[in-house]
Amino acid sequence: MPHINLAPEVPGIGAAFAFRPETAKPMRELAHILLFESGTENGLSSLERELIASYVSSRNNCYFCQTSHGAAAANHIGGSLELVASVCANPETADISEKLKALLVIAAHVQGDAKTVSSAHIAAARAAGATDLEIHDTVLIAAAFCMYNRYVDGLATWQPRDPEMYGAMGKHLAQRGYRQSSLAAV
Amino acid sequence: MPHINLAPEVPGIGAAFAFRPETAKPMRELAHILLFESGTENGLSSLERELIASYVSSRNNCYFCQTSHGAAAANHIGGSLELVASVCANPETADISEKLKALLVIAAHVQGDAKTVSSAHIAAARAAGATDLEIHDTVLIAAAFCMYNRYVDGLATWQPRDPEMYGAMGKHLAQRGYRQSSLAAV
Repeated sequence: MPHINLAPEVPGIGAAFAFRPETAKPMRELAHILLFESGTENGLSSLERELIASYVSSRNNCYFCQTSHGAAAANHIGGSLELVASVCANPETADISEKLKALLVIAAHVQGDAKTVSSAHIAAARAAGATDLEIHDTVLIAAAFCMYNRYVDGLATWQPRDPEMYGAMGKHLAQRGYRQSSLAAV
Repeated sequence: MPHINLAPEVPGIGAAFAFRPETAKPMRELAHILLFESGTENGLSSLERELIASYVSSRNNCYFCQTSHGAAAANHIGGSLELVASVCANPETADISEKLKALLVIAAHVQGDAKTVSSAHIAAARAAGATDLEIHDTVLIAAAFCMYNRYVDGLATWQPRDPEMYGAMGKHLAQRGYRQSSLAAV
């Protein structure tokens, strides 16, 4: 049961967003820019951005965010639930680019103690082709999911275990992004 | 030296905001609502909100955020740098309300592993007079500073040690909030 009086039958972060629409708006906007909108410009694709989000959420043991963003990744071109699972299990052996592997090393350090991101980690990402913008966005996606994950878990939101619900949510997120609230996920 | 090519002579998060104005906007907006605007309504004052921000940042060892939000707290009515230091050292012995002490226990658990926020922590906060909105905002401020702190440290931003700079920044933040960029702090 949630720690505060959240709307019943609204899963995860959606219930918290409904409770406090004022703060939901910039939180949705940040996710929309970082995960959806920026994926159509140069740099990391939305698939890669969602993989970073799901990986960080798995390291924070946030079931709702890991599963919803994993479903979003699976609904982007080239994505699948198997790819998400392999990235969360071990990026080194996953079927992803060397650049994304190097960026996920940075993301893992941001998730733990961000001060442990080293010049060597950055140099390795650059050697694999990462730009400053891609490094920036990786750091910020990892940092932002340390917020979203804690928001979801710190309020003890309802996190159903129904794969079909997450599948529908992932499809919506991959197609329309995070500004709209119909499926209520970040 | 910052890990990516950030503007020199811009301290802390301001340099990261200048690098990526698209994401800076919702991040500033969230801080403005959580720390400044909401402090004038019912519930937690801006002083109490800034104390939570500074306390969480101190637990994350983020010098820039701890010091800038400590300075903001000191510039709100009833605040002082001594009060900030005593809260960061040990909320239990600080000169703050029992309600804020109970909320800082929740904030500390969100900062660590948000799943460890328990019904007993929530009950203690309620017994001390905390409302659902105050519990919500405490959880979200703590979660949000787990993002801001990691953003500042994960990019290795410049974090000067000049108390006068933080004093001026704190005054600006306490008077005008977070939407404006002149002093470039969250």
